[in-house]
Amino acid sequence: MKEKMYHMWLQYNSIDGPDLQAYQKLFEEVALMGSSSIMEVIKEELNIAIKNMLHISPKITTNQKAKIVIGNINQLNELLENKKKQEIESMSNEGYLLYFFEEQLYVVGKTDQAVLYGTFHLLRLIQLRRTLNTLNISEQPTNQLRMLNQWDNLDGSIERGYSGNSIFYEAGKIVRDKSRLKDYARFLASIGINAISINNVNVWEEETFFITEKYLPEIKEISDIFHSYGVQLFLSINFASPIAIDHLETADPLQPEVMQWWSNKVKEIYDYIPTFGGFVVKADSEHRPGPFTYDRDHADGANMLAEALAPYDGKVIWRCFVYNCVQDWRDRNTDRARAAYDHFKPLDGRFHPNVILQIKNGPMDFQVREPVSPLIGAMEKTNQMIEFQVAQEYTGQQKDLCYLIPQWKEVLEFDTHIKGVGTTIEKIVAGNIHPYRYSGIAAVSNIGNDQNWTGHTLAQANLYGYGRLTWNPSLGSEEIAKEWIIQTFGKNANLESVILEMLLESWEIYENYTAPLGVGWMVTPGIHYGPNIDGYEYSRWGTYHFADRDGIGVDRTKETGTGYTEQYAEPNKSVYNSPTTCPDDLLLFFHHVPYKYTLKNGKTVIQHIYDTHFKGLEQVKELRKKWNSLESEIDDARFENVRERLALQEDNAREWCDQINTYFYRKSGIQDQHQRTIY
Amino acid sequence: MKEKMYHMWLQYNSIDGPDLQAYQKLFEEVALMGSSSIMEVIKEELNIAIKNMLHISPKITTNQKAKIVIGNINQLNELLENKKKQEIESMSNEGYLLYFFEEQLYVVGKTDQAVLYGTFHLLRLIQLRRTLNTLNISEQPTNQLRMLNQWDNLDGSIERGYSGNSIFYEAGKIVRDKSRLKDYARFLASIGINAISINNVNVWEEETFFITEKYLPEIKEISDIFHSYGVQLFLSINFASPIAIDHLETADPLQPEVMQWWSNKVKEIYDYIPTFGGFVVKADSEHRPGPFTYDRDHADGANMLAEALAPYDGKVIWRCFVYNCVQDWRDRNTDRARAAYDHFKPLDGRFHPNVILQIKNGPMDFQVREPVSPLIGAMEKTNQMIEFQVAQEYTGQQKDLCYLIPQWKEVLEFDTHIKGVGTTIEKIVAGNIHPYRYSGIAAVSNIGNDQNWTGHTLAQANLYGYGRLTWNPSLGSEEIAKEWIIQTFGKNANLESVILEMLLESWEIYENYTAPLGVGWMVTPGIHYGPNIDGYEYSRWGTYHFADRDGIGVDRTKETGTGYTEQYAEPNKSVYNSPTTCPDDLLLFFHHVPYKYTLKNGKTVIQHIYDTHFKGLEQVKELRKKWNSLESEIDDARFENVRERLALQEDNAREWCDQINTYFYRKSGIQDQHQRTIY
Repeated sequence: MKEKMYHMWLQYNSIDGPDLQAYQKLFEEVALMGSSSIMEVIKEELNIAIKNMLHISPKITTNQKAKIVIGNINQLNELLENKKKQEIESMSNEGYLLYFFEEQLYVVGKTDQAVLYGTFHLLRLIQLRRTLNTLNISEQPTNQLRMLNQWDNLDGSIERGYSGNSIFYEAGKIVRDKSRLKDYARFLASIGINAISINNVNVWEEETFFITEKYLPEIKEISDIFHSYGVQLFLSINFASPIAIDHLETADPLQPEVMQWWSNKVKEIYDYIPTFGGFVVKADSEHRPGPFTYDRDHADGANMLAEALAPYDGKVIWRCFVYNCVQDWRDRNTDRARAAYDHFKPLDGRFHPNVILQIKNGPMDFQVREPVSPLIGAMEKTNQMIEFQVAQEYTGQQKDLCYLIPQWKEVLEFDTHIKGVGTTIEKIVAGNIHPYRYSGIAAVSNIGNDQNWTGHTLAQANLYGYGRLTWNPSLGSEEIAKEWIIQTFGKNANLESVILEMLLESWEIYENYTAPLGVGWMVTPGIHYGPNIDGYEYSRWGTYHFADRDGIGVDRTKETGTGYTEQYAEPNKSVYNSPTTCPDDLLLFFHHVPYKYTLKNGKTVIQHIYDTHFKGLEQVKELRKKWNSLESEIDDARFENVRERLALQEDNAREWCDQINTYFYRKSGIQDQHQRTIY
Repeated sequence: MKEKMYHMWLQYNSIDGPDLQAYQKLFEEVALMGSSSIMEVIKEELNIAIKNMLHISPKITTNQKAKIVIGNINQLNELLENKKKQEIESMSNEGYLLYFFEEQLYVVGKTDQAVLYGTFHLLRLIQLRRTLNTLNISEQPTNQLRMLNQWDNLDGSIERGYSGNSIFYEAGKIVRDKSRLKDYARFLASIGINAISINNVNVWEEETFFITEKYLPEIKEISDIFHSYGVQLFLSINFASPIAIDHLETADPLQPEVMQWWSNKVKEIYDYIPTFGGFVVKADSEHRPGPFTYDRDHADGANMLAEALAPYDGKVIWRCFVYNCVQDWRDRNTDRARAAYDHFKPLDGRFHPNVILQIKNGPMDFQVREPVSPLIGAMEKTNQMIEFQVAQEYTGQQKDLCYLIPQWKEVLEFDTHIKGVGTTIEKIVAGNIHPYRYSGIAAVSNIGNDQNWTGHTLAQANLYGYGRLTWNPSLGSEEIAKEWIIQTFGKNANLESVILEMLLESWEIYENYTAPLGVGWMVTPGIHYGPNIDGYEYSRWGTYHFADRDGIGVDRTKETGTGYTEQYAEPNKSVYNSPTTCPDDLLLFFHHVPYKYTLKNGKTVIQHIYDTHFKGLEQVKELRKKWNSLESEIDDARFENVRERLALQEDNAREWCDQINTYFYRKSGIQDQHQRTIY
């Protein structure tokens, strides 16, 4: 039964009971209009899904009278009422209708890709046991770019990968058997992902040659697989490629020979892969090469690539994760949190229209709790997209349970006030605030070659949720979780309520037992798992908590701190700048306060630390009990997988709880009000 | 001139001035009596040395009238007076006479090996420009076993190696070109080392097969090389070899088939290498296999091997570095310092006479400052030897200068009082206190395949001094350093005094800027270089400082602590047990005291921390100035090597100084009396 692990939310479990007959009747015959690689894929998926769920093989025809009619607007043009036609014409290319009309069920997309999304939507509804004969759905994605970044290396390793090795590469080669890539593409299409970059943003020596004839033929194969599922392929590139590949003497973006080199290179890539998406670039960041070497700025660097890509509608996705990574811990003036804004904001208006800046959700680096990056929305004339991390680097590494959708929703719902009340991140990255040509959401993937893709079976929910939320940010965390649970484990009210509870409380639990009140870090350097309170305190990474015997936190105020708060629009600027208005959960991110400082919840900082940490550990024990109560309701393989991970999580939570409490007790000398054991 | 780096203290620099003629005259003809591989080596060495120093090729004869006559007691029997004969008869096999008599210079050894030592002694005297015509020296080593342990792995790496890769192994093979091994053997013989184990005490998978026909032929070649320089070869073995090599079901030392297996194995080894020394064993330590697996104790394990080796006079060197390496930092009762004594003391009398326990000098692990291990001398009926670490694992890794002879001398001079006043470690390991059949000194080597052998050129002094001190522990640190400087850099009064000063103060300097007052650790976990004050505080290694806002240190007293002090004989027991009598430099090893506790030097603990750390950094700056003053007096390669290392040392010292001071200021809140910058 290990298969169940593999199939994630596309289990297509056998349906029984009264629903079965109704579904069976509907699916006796399916009219599938048109032909393309995407339409082939739709046929395949229908065959698998219907056979598994309904135990019948639908007759696939082009009969307009079939109970189910599937096709794009051009194929179905004659069949549709004008109203429907108009409705779909007004949609983006990925929009579709899913409706019941005069005894027929229509899945009509504006394009084949949209039809694929509609089909997956229909199959999801069946998995969720919804009634189909009242359907009247009109859908299109809120975000234009819905992307995943693989941080996979050619040697098979994955930077920040917690689910085994790469499914793309093995021992220095692209995998020969690409069947698992096809399955990955299926999963991505089923949740609406439409773009993927397939190599680590840190582009090492050999990966630099991905854009040469040595690798392009095989990358084209990969691209074809993803393309047939509506997913466009991007590559991360090495900014110094002209030097590394063809021994040019420079990679200076303003040198004609460099521009010409890239122009030729891009042509070569598009000759192989006409549907190629473009480049993802990490430049001048953590020792990666970039335009700074030549005294050029990020706009110079990005625009040079953009010009080469423009003739093919290719895009440059330029990451804003740029900061001083050789900081001196003694230096209190440099503030890593300021870096992205300080670097990029002054360049607004200078970037070409096919450049998109990709900005991490917070100003530091995917901590369990950070404020929202003030750069997002701050550049009116520059395309932007936000970057999340589905991989649980700082949030438990898929050993600990941490359902991240609530975190991402909080970010998306954050009101920047940049254009007045209601200027949410959600609207900015959807392109509804500034006139962005391109925008959207990207995220670091969490999958690897583990049988269950994500190491922790419940971490599948983060990948699922990422896709669903990115398609439609108005979906609730709970709604997404429910969808995922039913599709993954089957319809079972008890199981649904237990797992739902586990997922929804997991982020809070993880936050409870780790670094408190938004201060972040305190993890084992390099590994980023497990507590090491001073691990990043005397380091070069710009990541400090400044705890002493009296207090803790980073003063980022205008008056006495680094002035980072100034990067926000009012009223956020003022809210964050004062400890009395700053939200408790970000207090130590913005302020250095005494341990006896009283939070809005009435507790002192130190008592809050003790309470949350003892509570977090207890909550993990409860998680284990909850999961164990499901033993008889889940197949062994998945049950055991999660059971084992929860045991690891308890070990981790205990270490965090005891080390954090001991560290702060030793430093503050303040007793826990409840006299619990501190070492 | 990189050659100078390579030749360490055997430079044999050209001699000029008035000494030259006298030496030349003496060396016109050298009678070399007898023939053996060792005598061959003596001839070689004389040829090299005399040619280089005196620009002549001595006539090597067997002419008894030659100015210099060299041979063993049997060869020279007829030539010697009765008094001299008797004198040499009374010596150990390694003893020799070196004396001038009736216009002839005699080098007479009890054995060829002794003759070799005598010859190197003579050559040393010439390098030191001593007058030879009044010589009347009678020498024999104080310690029986004078050993080096290589921690080299077959893949070419060296565990705790700071001088490049192995000279023995490369990429999974024993090196084909063994000329460097011969040079290493020369260096070792020149300082009296008589035993070497050539593989890491952690015996990994492939190294387990060293005792099989796969490797023995080539190990025999290595053994022959070392044997011709009087150095006996040992191998580290894997206690689970019967299982690993021949798939026995057990390695239980009391099972007849296991005993038989080892008996056969030992016979096989001696068939290849009749001069084989025996086994070095790290068992039941840091996850290495051992007798505990079978519910047997260390005596059972060691004795089983001893029985197999006894017929060949082979020895078992059994390491006592046994402790709980998965300790819980919350557990205040377990004390790693107690472990060796607690494990081994109760076994006294149970070990076979060809077993020797090898005990690290301190109870923890080669820290810059530790008390002496209370186990040494505590077992009257069990052979013991002490283990030092020439490799500077915790003492600067051959980036920082740390001349270790003063540390080892302090250890050797420590009076255990086990048999009353004067029961020094020196006498115990020399076998002069208890009736040990075997005893001596071992040390982890510090060499690798760097051009200069030891990474830091001045670290050569530690290898040189280790040999000299082990031969004769009554030599002073200064005397040894002077010998080394002159032989290494030539005779130059200014250079001699500057380098001497640098060497002699270097241990104190290193101690000044690193972990204070004997508390130890505070280094980067795993790497063991650079500061990480809490790095080992919440770990499983039993290595804690327990610093809180009020004080610091480990309570190891009888009354309120772990009772470790009880392992010492009186009066040490009482001296260590009370903070008022405990030496300042070990205060935090034995006691937890407030930061304001006043030391015997009148300073508070916290002020002592600040003062020593600021001072240590300043002292490193002074070291750099001193070295730079020698630029014109030293060849470029060696000058630059040390210059670069001292720059690294200053960076390291600055990090230590600032991190330690900041850590303790933040924790204690106590200002530096001198208002120096703390972050």
